[in-house]
Amino acid sequence: MSEQKILIAGQWQNANSTGNIQAVNPANGEKVGEIFPVSGWVDIDLALDAAAKASAELRGVSGEKMATFLETYAIGIEAHADQLCEIASLETGLPAATRLGGIELPRTTNQLRLAAKAAREGSWTLPTIDTAVNIRSCHGQLGPVCVMGPNNFPFAFSAISGGDFAAAIAGGNPVIAKAHPSQPGTTKLFAEIALKALKETGLPLSTVQLIYDMSREDGLKLVSDGRIAATGFTGSMQGGLALKAAADKAGKLIYLELSSINPVVLLPGVMTERGDDLATEFAGSCLMASGQFCTNPGLVLLCKNDETETFIKQVSEKFEAAAVGTLLNKGVENGLIAGIKLCRKAGAELLVGDTKDEAGRYCYGNTLLRVSGSDFLGNSEALQVEMFGNASLIVVADDESQIAEIIDTLQGNLTGCIYSDSKGDDDQAYDLIAPILRSKVGRLINDKMPTGVAVSPAMNHGGPYPSSGHPGFSAVGLPGAIRRFSALHCYDNVRQNRLPAVLRDENPCSTLYRLIDGQWTTQNISQPVSV
Amino acid sequence: MSEQKILIAGQWQNANSTGNIQAVNPANGEKVGEIFPVSGWVDIDLALDAAAKASAELRGVSGEKMATFLETYAIGIEAHADQLCEIASLETGLPAATRLGGIELPRTTNQLRLAAKAAREGSWTLPTIDTAVNIRSCHGQLGPVCVMGPNNFPFAFSAISGGDFAAAIAGGNPVIAKAHPSQPGTTKLFAEIALKALKETGLPLSTVQLIYDMSREDGLKLVSDGRIAATGFTGSMQGGLALKAAADKAGKLIYLELSSINPVVLLPGVMTERGDDLATEFAGSCLMASGQFCTNPGLVLLCKNDETETFIKQVSEKFEAAAVGTLLNKGVENGLIAGIKLCRKAGAELLVGDTKDEAGRYCYGNTLLRVSGSDFLGNSEALQVEMFGNASLIVVADDESQIAEIIDTLQGNLTGCIYSDSKGDDDQAYDLIAPILRSKVGRLINDKMPTGVAVSPAMNHGGPYPSSGHPGFSAVGLPGAIRRFSALHCYDNVRQNRLPAVLRDENPCSTLYRLIDGQWTTQNISQPVSV
Repeated sequence: MSEQKILIAGQWQNANSTGNIQAVNPANGEKVGEIFPVSGWVDIDLALDAAAKASAELRGVSGEKMATFLETYAIGIEAHADQLCEIASLETGLPAATRLGGIELPRTTNQLRLAAKAAREGSWTLPTIDTAVNIRSCHGQLGPVCVMGPNNFPFAFSAISGGDFAAAIAGGNPVIAKAHPSQPGTTKLFAEIALKALKETGLPLSTVQLIYDMSREDGLKLVSDGRIAATGFTGSMQGGLALKAAADKAGKLIYLELSSINPVVLLPGVMTERGDDLATEFAGSCLMASGQFCTNPGLVLLCKNDETETFIKQVSEKFEAAAVGTLLNKGVENGLIAGIKLCRKAGAELLVGDTKDEAGRYCYGNTLLRVSGSDFLGNSEALQVEMFGNASLIVVADDESQIAEIIDTLQGNLTGCIYSDSKGDDDQAYDLIAPILRSKVGRLINDKMPTGVAVSPAMNHGGPYPSSGHPGFSAVGLPGAIRRFSALHCYDNVRQNRLPAVLRDENPCSTLYRLIDGQWTTQNISQPVSV
Repeated sequence: MSEQKILIAGQWQNANSTGNIQAVNPANGEKVGEIFPVSGWVDIDLALDAAAKASAELRGVSGEKMATFLETYAIGIEAHADQLCEIASLETGLPAATRLGGIELPRTTNQLRLAAKAAREGSWTLPTIDTAVNIRSCHGQLGPVCVMGPNNFPFAFSAISGGDFAAAIAGGNPVIAKAHPSQPGTTKLFAEIALKALKETGLPLSTVQLIYDMSREDGLKLVSDGRIAATGFTGSMQGGLALKAAADKAGKLIYLELSSINPVVLLPGVMTERGDDLATEFAGSCLMASGQFCTNPGLVLLCKNDETETFIKQVSEKFEAAAVGTLLNKGVENGLIAGIKLCRKAGAELLVGDTKDEAGRYCYGNTLLRVSGSDFLGNSEALQVEMFGNASLIVVADDESQIAEIIDTLQGNLTGCIYSDSKGDDDQAYDLIAPILRSKVGRLINDKMPTGVAVSPAMNHGGPYPSSGHPGFSAVGLPGAIRRFSALHCYDNVRQNRLPAVLRDENPCSTLYRLIDGQWTTQNISQPVSV
């Protein structure tokens, strides 16, 4: 088998490879698909030059044209849906029809279309005009963006089709996509569809480039290169923080969406009210897709009482009874086993699992651990280890105050959830715990599990460090996510015809809101501006 | 003289000092005012503990109350205007009546009042509501903020009264202010007024704390401490980047406003049209306040022709003729001399100045340097040295293309300016140069000098690295500047009474715009939300 080509400057080129990779079907451990190159710096250097050139060319390109590309791409993806689902399923073990075709592919094309809408309208730019001094500002192009996607969403978070990709492109930036090395075939197919869409739209062909894999060292060099403006990374804490250190040092932006244990508090009142339901909800949320979600509930906090013991018994039974799902790859399996080991070593007691379920595929027994509130407090840092996959830690606290105390020791997380009763018995505890939890998470949830991340302008899929690198931004949700890949562009006394369209007196789009002299409005500026 | 006390947890306390400092009157080099402590880590540790406690207490405090504090403080500042101007003038050499009392003090109280308005209204929180899924988000409290102010604006950028301070407080965050060591007396007076205002408003007294000085090492430790959420630093590149490295490593936010040479392009057409005026404008802007502005025009680019030679002659004469202003302190004088030396070493030719003007006060001769476009290109990095003060470098380029080429080699700057003619002769050159300059600066200006930073919602006083640490934010301009010191708080399915006021169905403020289902509106949500 010959090594597949990489996409540089609009051309499928032979890589200057330093090695190669092949995907593995996690359902049977067998190699699948083509051979793909691990690129050396020569390839990355070419991609960076091309991206820098594309960035300059894109300065003059309208949001309308970026939007057309994103929509054309979405249509192309839909036309190749079966092929994409088939190959992604082979590379990830995720069900082709239900999960990939039924949920993730529509989510992906929806994101691309929402990004297109924002790019066309210009709403993401937050145009702000002060007529008294004739100063105007909006968010604008940042420059070449490197996107590195995770293993758990081969479409919706993919480096070449996911949220970061859509946001970067909508902001007028070229993207250098680095495939997840577990999913080279899926990523290649996306790149082919994207290139076709670029050609059809007439955008610079270097707007989207693809490299399959690179050394850790070259990755660090890439995110800190002078030609790159920002990086979007979704993945492991270890990898993400190493990239952040390199990018920070060079003054380069990097947005991270890292691990999170997503604490869920089940207060006594709601446990009395509907403890049985919560056992079902929790087990369902925790084991869904083998627990391989960023917002998987990895830490459950309850008060010591009979209902809690019943809950633990019920959840344990469900974990025992539930089929053991396939994990995405060997790395996830190893990481899960290591996480469970660390958690037990730190004092957690095993309730269910921690067993190699079967050979031949990547998987590990559904695992439930337990620890007391005071033991958690005695070893809080170690017990916050992420067990990415079908595992969770239950903390049985002495009382609500101890839960508050525990929450106060947590690192930043993407989500935090509190279930409380409908009669008000839990209200005092809620008022004690919620403000502390609020300061630790990006999304505070009531009465439902954290899995499920709606693509909404109001979403925050981000959170305090180290769940992300900046607590003010969300990786999901448009148009806000686009602004991560933007610079604030101020125009002081700049002549009308030289302003970007969104800042001219005449509003270029009837649905575009602009903040003019403190009022959000879709109106034109009718009075001539004099300074 | 006994050592002055620091303000920790609402008490004026003796410092655990490791040394002490005293201000120096730059007009005569003599020590002035009291003796102030250099705090050791013990002091900083106490301040951090108090700030963390205040941060928790402030979680439940309304924007209204923060606004009342800011306004009470502004009134207090006005009541002490004469005293503040007198001491600040002694410590900085800036004229008490004209600059400090006439310009900077009103600017400062205006900023505090604009921050109060934003805090009261909640406009800075950008409330976003998606009723279809009942997800709501807004920006909210971040946590304790450390503010370190610069030397050049003892009021408007002061750590305890300036833009960063106002923004952090308006966002509901306590501030640990670190005085500029040249201005301890001014800062102390501000702290006294602030403490009184805290007491009158009934806010936690640890909301504002003051430390005068600390070792470099302790500064690095402070910005990366677990109890701090963010830092706002305005000052030198060297100091700022060291702090950034420490903060980044700990995953802490830091906003920088560093040096900038603020390129100004004077195109041939406008030089023919009104070259004489531009010589006057440029010399005025460059020498104003001895050039000690962040947006001082430190690099002027022109094309080689007779008008340029006339301009250089005229500016040289003006630089020779103009009185030499007093510099803020010995450090500024040393820095300016070193910058000029580096610039000359890098190939710039001396036109005027580079002379020690007189002994007894801090000052240095108005200095004008010159270099050809090709020489600049040959040594671009070295010739971008900031000469903070009354000095500037004129680049005489072969033509407009070479100016574009030069701009392309520049680092990030706060501002960039292009003067062009009124008849359209310069339009082609503008179109060539402006997109490149746009990508290098925060504020793109037409036909006026960069000094003068309006406090406007549309302002960007920030820019690409290394002029600031994040190109998406401005240090000046409300309400946007507040969001630097915020986290994005998402509420998913959270019950009405538990939501922050700005996210409830009923809009708490008739002038507050909220983005509800894609429309910016001041209306309530009248339809019950069902998910």
